[in-house]
Amino acid sequence: MDVKTGVKMTAEELTAFLAEIFPQIASDFVIDEVGERRITVRLLVEDRHLRPGGTVSGPSTFALADVAVYLAVMAMVGPKAMAVTTSCSMDFMRKPVANADLIGECRLLKLGRMLAVGDVLIFSEGMAEPVARATVTYSIPPG
Amino acid sequence: MDVKTGVKMTAEELTAFLAEIFPQIASDFVIDEVGERRITVRLLVEDRHLRPGGTVSGPSTFALADVAVYLAVMAMVGPKAMAVTTSCSMDFMRKPVANADLIGECRLLKLGRMLAVGDVLIFSEGMAEPVARATVTYSIPPG
Amino acid sequence: MDVKTGVKMTAEELTAFLAEIFPQIASDFVIDEVGERRITVRLLVEDRHLRPGGTVSGPSTFALADVAVYLAVMAMVGPKAMAVTTSCSMDFMRKPVANADLIGECRLLKLGRMLAVGDVLIFSEGMAEPVARATVTYSIPPG
Amino acid sequence: MDVKTGVKMTAEELTAFLAEIFPQIASDFVIDEVGERRITVRLLVEDRHLRPGGTVSGPSTFALADVAVYLAVMAMVGPKAMAVTTSCSMDFMRKPVANADLIGECRLLKLGRMLAVGDVLIFSEGMAEPVARATVTYSIPPG
Repeated sequence: MDVKTGVKMTAEELTAFLAEIFPQIASDFVIDEVGERRITVRLLVEDRHLRPGGTVSGPSTFALADVAVYLAVMAMVGPKAMAVTTSCSMDFMRKPVANADLIGECRLLKLGRMLAVGDVLIFSEGMAEPVARATVTYSIPPG
Repeated sequence: MDVKTGVKMTAEELTAFLAEIFPQIASDFVIDEVGERRITVRLLVEDRHLRPGGTVSGPSTFALADVAVYLAVMAMVGPKAMAVTTSCSMDFMRKPVANADLIGECRLLKLGRMLAVGDVLIFSEGMAEPVARATVTYSIPPG
Repeated sequence: MDVKTGVKMTAEELTAFLAEIFPQIASDFVIDEVGERRITVRLLVEDRHLRPGGTVSGPSTFALADVAVYLAVMAMVGPKAMAVTTSCSMDFMRKPVANADLIGECRLLKLGRMLAVGDVLIFSEGMAEPVARATVTYSIPPG
Repeated sequence: MDVKTGVKMTAEELTAFLAEIFPQIASDFVIDEVGERRITVRLLVEDRHLRPGGTVSGPSTFALADVAVYLAVMAMVGPKAMAVTTSCSMDFMRKPVANADLIGECRLLKLGRMLAVGDVLIFSEGMAEPVARATVTYSIPPG
C-alpha cells in the first residue's frame, strides 16, 4: 500500500534540512516548488558542473535527479536523512546549455513504507524539450 | 560490427588527457590498470564525496562509473573528448566504507563505431562484495 | 535535432501493420488512442500472460511497453519494421490485477533521426496508480 | 548482510518447479548448469520468439533474463514461487541469430534476505560476443 500523507515539509524546511545534513552540495541546489508527491529542484550551474564541450556533466545531472527524488520523499515522509538510493536509470537525450541552470521536475510514482520510486524530467532553463530523464528508487529506513 | 583495435592509450596518457580536458574532476581519480577493453579506476574518497551516514554519495559513485567507461573507450579509440553518455543504469547494493577508496572495474561489452557499452562493478577497497554495479552507454563522435 | 512531423499512421493502419509484420503477438494488443508523440496500447490479458500469484508476468508487461514505444515511433515516422530496441529500464511498482487488461500510456521524449526514447506508464484497468513504468530506446533504420 | 547458503535446488528440481508453477513458459527453457550464485539457462528459440528481421524479439530476450535470475534465486533460497521482479535494465547490443538458441549466463551480485540482484549476459549459441545484457532485481517474500 502506498503511504497516504500530505506534504510534511515546506521548501524552506527542506532547504534548511539539506544544508544541515549535506553541506557539501546544498548550495548547488534551489527548490523551486514543492507539492503533493511533486517537487521542482534547480541546479545552479557553475564551471565545476561542466564537461568537455561546455555542457553540464553526467554526474552533475545525476546529482540533480538524485537530490530531487530524495527531497520529494523527505517532503512527504518528514526528515529521514538515512534514506538511500537503491537504483537509478537515466537517459541523456539532448545537449544541455552550458550557461543555463538545469531544472528537475520530479513526481513520485510510488511512495511505499519501505520503497519510493520517482521520475524526473530534466530541462535546461528556457529549452522546451527535456535534456534527460531519470528514475530513482530510494529505500526508506523504518521508524 | 565491433571495432577491432588494441589499446591505444596508456594509463599515463589517459591520466594526462583527463587532466587536460576535465580539470574539475581529474584529481579525484587514479587509473590502476588498463587492458584490452578493460580498465580499473579508483575514486580517491574525500569528505566531499560522502553523504549522510558517512558513506560515499550516489553522485560520486555514478561519477566513478561514468569516468571509468569514458576512459575505457578512450583507451581503445584514442582521445575523443566529445564522447557523451547517452544512458546509464545503476544498482546500489551495499553500503560503501567511508574511509576507503572506491574501485571501479570496467569492461566494455560493446565497442562499435558509434556506440560503446561498458559494465562496471564497484568495490570499497578491501571489501569482497561489490557495493554497486553500473552500465553506461557512450555515443562516440565520428572522425 | 528532433524530427518534426505530424502523425503519419492511424490506429487502424498501425493495427494492420502489426498484424502483418508481427503476427505472433498482434492479437494480444489493441491500440486505444494515437496522438502526436503519444499512444495508448492495451494488453488483452489472458491466462498465458499470468505468473505465479495470479498476476501479469514481467515479460508480458515488458512486451506491452516495448510494443507501445514501437508503435508510437511508427505512428510518427511511418512503417519502418526494422526499428530495434536498444535499451530498456523498467520498475515494477504494484501488483497488477489478474483479470484486468494492462494499459500502457506512452509518450515519446525524444524522436531523433536515428534514436527515439519513449516513456510508458502501465496501469491495470480500473486502478488509479501505475503498476509499472518503463523507458524504451529504439534505433530507427535510415531511409 | 548477504544470506550465506549453498545451492539448495538442483537443475532437475528447478525444472520440475518451473513446470509446476509456470506451465505457460516452462517448456521454452532448459537449465544448462547451476552453481553457487550462478546459473546458465537456455531459451529454445522457436518461431514465436522471433520479430521482424528474423531475429529473437525483445520480450523473449527479457523473458530469458527474468527467468534466469528467478531460477538463480530459487536455487539458493529454495522454492519461493512468490518472488517478484521489482526492476530491470537491459541493453540490446547485437542482433541475435534467428535459428540459434539464446543462452543466459547469470550471476547473483547480491542475495539479501529481502532483495536479490542478478546480472545476465545473453549469447546466441555459437557467437563469442553477447547479444544483450540485463540486470534484474527480485523481491524475496519472507518466511
